[in-house]
Amino acid sequence: MAGFEQSPLYRIMHPTSVAIWGASSNPMAMGSVVLGQMLALGFEGPVYLMHPREQQIMGLQTYKHLKDVPGPVDLAVLVLPTNVVPETLEECGKTGVTRAIIVTAGFGEMGPEGRELQKQIIEIARKYGIHFIGPNCIGVVNPYAKLNTTAFPYDSPPGFIGMASQSGSFITQVFVHMEKFGIGFSQAFSVGNEAMTDITDCLEYLGQCPHTKVIALYVEAIRRGRDFFRTAREVSKRKPIVAYYIGGSESGKRAALSHTGALAGPDPVYDGIFRQCGIIRAGSVEELFDMCCTLGTQPLPKGNGLAILTHSGGPGVAAADTAERSGLKLPAFSAATNAELMTLVPHTASIGNPVDMTYNRRLDDYVEAIPPVLLQDPNVHSLFIYMLIPLERVIRTIQATGTTVDQAEAMAEGFIISQCESVARLSARYRKPVIGASFCTREELFVRELQDRGVPLLPSAERAIKALAALVKYAGIREALIKEDSDGHPSQADSRP
Amino acid sequence: MAGFEQSPLYRIMHPTSVAIWGASSNPMAMGSVVLGQMLALGFEGPVYLMHPREQQIMGLQTYKHLKDVPGPVDLAVLVLPTNVVPETLEECGKTGVTRAIIVTAGFGEMGPEGRELQKQIIEIARKYGIHFIGPNCIGVVNPYAKLNTTAFPYDSPPGFIGMASQSGSFITQVFVHMEKFGIGFSQAFSVGNEAMTDITDCLEYLGQCPHTKVIALYVEAIRRGRDFFRTAREVSKRKPIVAYYIGGSESGKRAALSHTGALAGPDPVYDGIFRQCGIIRAGSVEELFDMCCTLGTQPLPKGNGLAILTHSGGPGVAAADTAERSGLKLPAFSAATNAELMTLVPHTASIGNPVDMTYNRRLDDYVEAIPPVLLQDPNVHSLFIYMLIPLERVIRTIQATGTTVDQAEAMAEGFIISQCESVARLSARYRKPVIGASFCTREELFVRELQDRGVPLLPSAERAIKALAALVKYAGIREALIKEDSDGHPSQADSRP
Repeated sequence: MAGFEQSPLYRIMHPTSVAIWGASSNPMAMGSVVLGQMLALGFEGPVYLMHPREQQIMGLQTYKHLKDVPGPVDLAVLVLPTNVVPETLEECGKTGVTRAIIVTAGFGEMGPEGRELQKQIIEIARKYGIHFIGPNCIGVVNPYAKLNTTAFPYDSPPGFIGMASQSGSFITQVFVHMEKFGIGFSQAFSVGNEAMTDITDCLEYLGQCPHTKVIALYVEAIRRGRDFFRTAREVSKRKPIVAYYIGGSESGKRAALSHTGALAGPDPVYDGIFRQCGIIRAGSVEELFDMCCTLGTQPLPKGNGLAILTHSGGPGVAAADTAERSGLKLPAFSAATNAELMTLVPHTASIGNPVDMTYNRRLDDYVEAIPPVLLQDPNVHSLFIYMLIPLERVIRTIQATGTTVDQAEAMAEGFIISQCESVARLSARYRKPVIGASFCTREELFVRELQDRGVPLLPSAERAIKALAALVKYAGIREALIKEDSDGHPSQADSRP
Repeated sequence: MAGFEQSPLYRIMHPTSVAIWGASSNPMAMGSVVLGQMLALGFEGPVYLMHPREQQIMGLQTYKHLKDVPGPVDLAVLVLPTNVVPETLEECGKTGVTRAIIVTAGFGEMGPEGRELQKQIIEIARKYGIHFIGPNCIGVVNPYAKLNTTAFPYDSPPGFIGMASQSGSFITQVFVHMEKFGIGFSQAFSVGNEAMTDITDCLEYLGQCPHTKVIALYVEAIRRGRDFFRTAREVSKRKPIVAYYIGGSESGKRAALSHTGALAGPDPVYDGIFRQCGIIRAGSVEELFDMCCTLGTQPLPKGNGLAILTHSGGPGVAAADTAERSGLKLPAFSAATNAELMTLVPHTASIGNPVDMTYNRRLDDYVEAIPPVLLQDPNVHSLFIYMLIPLERVIRTIQATGTTVDQAEAMAEGFIISQCESVARLSARYRKPVIGASFCTREELFVRELQDRGVPLLPSAERAIKALAALVKYAGIREALIKEDSDGHPSQADSRP
């Protein structure tokens, strides 16, 4: 692999300056919306507005030609009518602008005429050494460089999920979905028609990106099968790849057929390919991000033994049921673990696995005393905790001891934060994955505090357990991949934290 | 079936007055929390606090004995230590209190001694003609009667989902989950140890409850198999039943074994039983409520032909993919439909099925003009719409026409509300189910407006399609059930709106 910063995609994702075509005095024009988002995320380099007639857009000066622009242009973003794209790209080439994102549609996806036009822009790009993404894409997001060339507001902090997607919606309209979990993108690509840059290029780039701890793919069809396979197999030895593939159904196949050279095939075939190159398959967009939350934050488990800790019967049983259906095991605890548990649980509790406290005798025990006991057990490779620490209830508990409302509020917040810190420390301390679930949303303090500390806290026990099962599966696949290679290639250490 | 208001459960769910044992000057005692929730929901009848020593609790007068209470007591709620439950129940019987909820644990679930105690309270109840729910349950909720005897705050409006659950958490900790969808319970029962009132009794009651449009069950094991089967089969001819059953896995079976006379069995057997009595099976708590949202609001489809409307490729393809995997079909549209669509979509759009607008030429068309065209097509039995109408974007669009910010805000809100009204009218007008999905939450106006008008708007295309598939399945099962009976019994009309 070439050095990361030498990758053709690096400069597209880290431009020092951007020129944008397509913004205008009409604030609802797609180009104007893109400009608005670029400014909203606070891109720090110069942004040059290109327009053939208008002198000012949103109070900013415009330029007719690239030669008029007062500084160097690192990245061109084209949100233009289809027919003027070739001449604009030509202008880029002539003035030495060699990185571009072509948002404009109406190329390869639009019949013979569009395909001809697409060939034309590829030729122009080759002539001048231009690398571009698109056409017919929704752009890219790199929160670390404060770069958002899409038409949607990115409000999350920079994150650890690198994504390459054959649907623009799935790297933009999911922003609001990701906010529910407090997670963000490290980098995200909408690859569009993949005329010059395809999902395999992005995969290779994301494999090298230091901010990217897990890679998410949305795939309708794969163009360069052999290269994709080789790249994915290499990358997944270092970091996990999760793919949502829809080419296995008739409708998915139809979508894939509209792409040339597509590798779309039936599910069992793809399942085999994914397994061989270490890719974990998700069954929905929600599952894709559930798995990324987990695979991007938790250490690799050494086996499939799961301990379940709950104070509510239903969620505990649902977790156990889902675990068994997902290939996890609920081992019996060691005698030492059972002896320790006996001193910590109320008399109504069950100290089987799940450990069902029935109620919290002392909330501290639930997150501070019991999890270490479970994680020390050699039969336990990972831990699931059902979480519910509503601020209101903690405030009332403290108030009952005779404090003022204000004191109780401050104490309750401090208590919850310290409890969440305890949970967040567990996985690093015991080198075992710890995952949680709660019906509560980020309106609750404990949800924000856990998620923002990197604990995957998912909206249901079932989803959390499925995501954990994906992590267990990845650990196994990765080990097998490294073992297979151990004759010829040195195995590479896990680069994840 | 006995008349609804004569059902032993009716008075428990509609008491004119309540006596509660277990509240005390300790606000964190379970009984105090229950009292707090009862008062918070605003129960309108008298609530009498029973306590052997304290004179006042939360500023309210207390009574030592039932004979001291100044008015009749309709329902007794016992949140007492286990050992004083029998004598308290005896006191109830002697003073003519014949309805009770026994929250207290430590009975049948706690070994031979507990089982003996449970027998004892059943005998007392029989002696005095008492009907009780529990023990070891978390109580009941009837928002129509402003009754909440659980320890969790119920903040949603009265709803259309009737639930009976063998887990207390799944009728209480799900309150916050239901708030995400703007849905509420019509009535909900935590059945606990089912000493006198089991899930079949609740099913029969909910089948008759006029506020209940769909019934949700959480089942670990069924006690009276034959009665359950007969009741479910009868009820599901009139309204849908969705069950989350976890007895099919080893851990589920273990949970079920702790109940006497359990019917727990392997999944395929249970799938067969459920199918024969018309019950739809959910695979998770989220799916249970997704399905209830849909089955409780939408008319029964006449077939499995689905039309998909989207302006975003990814969600449209994901919907199509899930539809095929769930047994739905995406029919070709009639020539008339295609001709009408041609006049309504932009040139970049696809008028296949999914109809992918690629972008909204006119937002009005998307929800006002196109859905009727699709729903009139005889090949289309139901419609899925991917929704995204962010208020901020509509405000900016209107501002661009030169209005003030305040004017634009008011106009945008009016516009979105009228769009949502249009969508909400579709299913009744065309007598075909209409379901939506959006990544946005109820923080967005359009999400609240759609959900509060009874449009199932779920958090992803995949979940919406699976819920719709459950509705199609139910329509088929129900038809078959009614047909089977048509010789002996007159078929009963669909009681749903």
